[in-house]
Amino acid sequence: MSTTSGGIVLGANQYGKAENRLVRIHRATDRHEIRDVTVSTALRGDFTAAHLAGDQSDVLPTDTQKNTCYAFAKSHGLGKIEDYALALARHFVDDVAPVQGARIAVDEFGWERVPVGGPDHPDRGHDHTWVRRGSEVRTTVVTVDAGGAEVVSGLRDLVLLKSTGSEFAGFLVDEYTTLAPTHDRIMSTSLVATWTYTGTAVDGDTDWDKTWADVRRILLERFATVHSLALQQTLWEMGRGVLEAHPEIAEISLSAPNRHHFVVDLAPFGLENANEVFYAADRPYGLIEATITRD
Amino acid sequence: MSTTSGGIVLGANQYGKAENRLVRIHRATDRHEIRDVTVSTALRGDFTAAHLAGDQSDVLPTDTQKNTCYAFAKSHGLGKIEDYALALARHFVDDVAPVQGARIAVDEFGWERVPVGGPDHPDRGHDHTWVRRGSEVRTTVVTVDAGGAEVVSGLRDLVLLKSTGSEFAGFLVDEYTTLAPTHDRIMSTSLVATWTYTGTAVDGDTDWDKTWADVRRILLERFATVHSLALQQTLWEMGRGVLEAHPEIAEISLSAPNRHHFVVDLAPFGLENANEVFYAADRPYGLIEATITRD
Amino acid sequence: MSTTSGGIVLGANQYGKAENRLVRIHRATDRHEIRDVTVSTALRGDFTAAHLAGDQSDVLPTDTQKNTCYAFAKSHGLGKIEDYALALARHFVDDVAPVQGARIAVDEFGWERVPVGGPDHPDRGHDHTWVRRGSEVRTTVVTVDAGGAEVVSGLRDLVLLKSTGSEFAGFLVDEYTTLAPTHDRIMSTSLVATWTYTGTAVDGDTDWDKTWADVRRILLERFATVHSLALQQTLWEMGRGVLEAHPEIAEISLSAPNRHHFVVDLAPFGLENANEVFYAADRPYGLIEATITRD
Amino acid sequence: MSTTSGGIVLGANQYGKAENRLVRIHRATDRHEIRDVTVSTALRGDFTAAHLAGDQSDVLPTDTQKNTCYAFAKSHGLGKIEDYALALARHFVDDVAPVQGARIAVDEFGWERVPVGGPDHPDRGHDHTWVRRGSEVRTTVVTVDAGGAEVVSGLRDLVLLKSTGSEFAGFLVDEYTTLAPTHDRIMSTSLVATWTYTGTAVDGDTDWDKTWADVRRILLERFATVHSLALQQTLWEMGRGVLEAHPEIAEISLSAPNRHHFVVDLAPFGLENANEVFYAADRPYGLIEATITRD
Repeated sequence: MSTTSGGIVLGANQYGKAENRLVRIHRATDRHEIRDVTVSTALRGDFTAAHLAGDQSDVLPTDTQKNTCYAFAKSHGLGKIEDYALALARHFVDDVAPVQGARIAVDEFGWERVPVGGPDHPDRGHDHTWVRRGSEVRTTVVTVDAGGAEVVSGLRDLVLLKSTGSEFAGFLVDEYTTLAPTHDRIMSTSLVATWTYTGTAVDGDTDWDKTWADVRRILLERFATVHSLALQQTLWEMGRGVLEAHPEIAEISLSAPNRHHFVVDLAPFGLENANEVFYAADRPYGLIEATITRD
Repeated sequence: MSTTSGGIVLGANQYGKAENRLVRIHRATDRHEIRDVTVSTALRGDFTAAHLAGDQSDVLPTDTQKNTCYAFAKSHGLGKIEDYALALARHFVDDVAPVQGARIAVDEFGWERVPVGGPDHPDRGHDHTWVRRGSEVRTTVVTVDAGGAEVVSGLRDLVLLKSTGSEFAGFLVDEYTTLAPTHDRIMSTSLVATWTYTGTAVDGDTDWDKTWADVRRILLERFATVHSLALQQTLWEMGRGVLEAHPEIAEISLSAPNRHHFVVDLAPFGLENANEVFYAADRPYGLIEATITRD
Repeated sequence: MSTTSGGIVLGANQYGKAENRLVRIHRATDRHEIRDVTVSTALRGDFTAAHLAGDQSDVLPTDTQKNTCYAFAKSHGLGKIEDYALALARHFVDDVAPVQGARIAVDEFGWERVPVGGPDHPDRGHDHTWVRRGSEVRTTVVTVDAGGAEVVSGLRDLVLLKSTGSEFAGFLVDEYTTLAPTHDRIMSTSLVATWTYTGTAVDGDTDWDKTWADVRRILLERFATVHSLALQQTLWEMGRGVLEAHPEIAEISLSAPNRHHFVVDLAPFGLENANEVFYAADRPYGLIEATITRD
Repeated sequence: MSTTSGGIVLGANQYGKAENRLVRIHRATDRHEIRDVTVSTALRGDFTAAHLAGDQSDVLPTDTQKNTCYAFAKSHGLGKIEDYALALARHFVDDVAPVQGARIAVDEFGWERVPVGGPDHPDRGHDHTWVRRGSEVRTTVVTVDAGGAEVVSGLRDLVLLKSTGSEFAGFLVDEYTTLAPTHDRIMSTSLVATWTYTGTAVDGDTDWDKTWADVRRILLERFATVHSLALQQTLWEMGRGVLEAHPEIAEISLSAPNRHHFVVDLAPFGLENANEVFYAADRPYGLIEATITRD
């Protein structure tokens, strides 16, 4: 992938079209379905001539990559984002000669049907009207090259908070330590989780939607029910729970900002504050990152 | 509120502490409750000396205003944000001599209890663990001065989309018009709504939470069920529906960006696109604003 | 501008195309010039039929308004943003029958020519290559209706900091006050300034660029040289300085977040901190707003 | 760094305090100096017990890491960000027993002295008042572990535009290609550059500020002067220029969004548009990434 020019050479490189905003409406019946995604493509191969000589003859324009994203949403459909991303990635590698590898990232934004029928008669939601479901994003990154396909799915911006059941004590103390230990605090995070499917799962008929929903359920449930001695411990338990329940997942990585909630000192105003009133800080924040994997 | 200095005078002015991030946990029982808000204060009065001479003797520090926000969350509680904002505003006007007017703005962020008990046994949610409910924000702005109290509540970042049932045709055409009329398009917006309560409602025992929830229900329902000939018409119907159902509301203002979803031309690739694949554009966007009021 | 429907009437309303991103390159010679702006339009008039009946016959599409922005950048040029906005606003009011008022807002982003010629031989900058000049934005809002034209120009995101020469003491103390007075602190803000030109200035041949640059100079210089007893006082002096120097300006409004920089307590680590090491806080922040006007 | 628990093991992990906002004022004379940075720390080591058993005895709190950032800004000073980051990283590895590796990231924000003295008498700038210099950020990431120290410095948010001297033609065409070739277009990017210093440079007395400024100069100059046949080619030339001039740099990575500026079709309005009026698009954008290294 590199070549020489006076001792200076081209190293790793890729190019693509980032953040194609795409909404797919399925209109087979009057009860429409919606998929709302942002797709980013990146192609890899020997693009030395483009860099060193400006020769574009091996370069499929990023505009074409964009077109392909939209065309595939029609021709191949857009159901589970992993399937869509695999189809796109395989197309670029298989059908475009100079392309040796393709990386397709898809973010999916959730929508809920608007309830109609009056407050006392909620029905199963409107046929073609939706309201955005939160800031949480479902993600996948699919990479295809000569070695096969890799699927890394996940979620981000999943904001969690527990108002008790969290401690932080017994930590290492050095000359810069002023923090007091606590046995009851708020623990809150905006979780990023990414999990890598096994090769068997990628080649099989994995139900991506079902696994995704169940991983999310486990993450939430463990966060809620583990009595936490540290965010590290909670992340470990969350990840372990996912791997125990899902053999189709090889490993999971969790990145968790510790969104600090500080107990406000109300004593100057003659008021007690028994973990009732908190200042929610923006920055700085703790940042805990861990990968849980198999032996 | 102003005074002279060589023909140049001080006009309108206010000062306060903006964006105090405050989380209130109610722990009366093991089943906690949470209120997550951002509070901004602004005080008005004759602060000429502070401006012209740097004399701070009439200036209550913004740091004190911040402290008061946190103290009131304990001493007065933090239930309905309108009640909390009214208490704060009245305190500043009544108890701090130089303050003649106070404006308290509160944004509230929603949380849902984390479901626990396994996928097949959903219960009523965890006692002290929550997940953030979307990006939608509930708002209120309370202003208190010699003339009394005004309460303007609302919501923002309520993102809606309908995949059919929306037209735009028969519009004015001039020499700069290239748009084709359409009888079937996606209509999507990120709604900002603010409604002003009547004086009677403010002085009475209005159930702010109940009205808020019902206004939101009406806005959603009208957006879904009105066959739209234009976003203007939809906004009118939404606002009219609110005023008809809620005599405690004097008027409502709606600001609605038209989040354009353009049908992608797939013809060059031999594909038909019958309103199935859309490009969701960021900018520019239409922006429609209207106030619906009473005669 | 409103009409009845069962006691419920349409109040104030406007619509337009927001945030049209437009770059204008002037290529009369090889030494190009660049103007980089975001334009937002809003039209006012009697649009009752559009709201109540969905009748678009008086509605010039926002898409047309967008086209007009781009066309005028060619046909009328895009030099000083005030002139461009006035031309656009007058066009909508004069040439589009149902339009009774137009509001054009323009944000301009600055660019500097890239220096070339080597580090020791800086020249006057490259002919057609630029680097963005900061986050600071020049603004104008022009409103034209039957009453004539109003021009309100300004700037925002002008971030300033002084490391001494700022006090805050002698303030009002109540039971919620814990702040200690200080006679030496950092004062920092991200200034928003908007000034209204006199009618005479709008109708005359005001050099908008020249006034803008000089107002900016005065604001900076006053911020730097006034020994500040409070941000209020600094704002007053900044505004007063502008009005004294510029009779073409009727009044100026300043909005200044107090970007708090807190002295970090290093005593636990055996270190003195004589206003040397600060924590720059995000939220909350003081927010000081004042209009300085003429008698 | 990992251990077993039923076949499921802890993989890579790190933790720290992210985005400590720190302003350092040097007050040795009345002519102050300012350094404005955001510091993020991350520690690595065997933290298995913290994850698996919630045992914090080897965990230095992120709060302590924050304190250390502020304390070092006083005790070790905060001059060149690379030196500061190296001191911090070495401290954590050398002085905190369980820590085997430390990663310190510093972003630095630039300030310029406010000009004073009147428009006709610019001087060398005010002694203690500054205005923020753009959105551009100087960066460094320093990693220290048993293998030694690595320094990766760079910049981001460097926004560039050239209005001519850029082509894109002769590219690969497939069935999804609709793009027309062009021999004159706007090329614009928001550059991210990171370069890795050689081990010799890290251990020597490299003048980090001087190298940084000269790399920036080369990047700007090459962007301006290379007649571009593709963004890939421009990046290669920029990177090659840096490596040729700076033996202390082992390799450089460039990430360049292609901020598309589309020529607006004004023909419907009877206007010619010879690359004069552009629509500056937000998304999607091309994204070109390349590393230029040594053989």
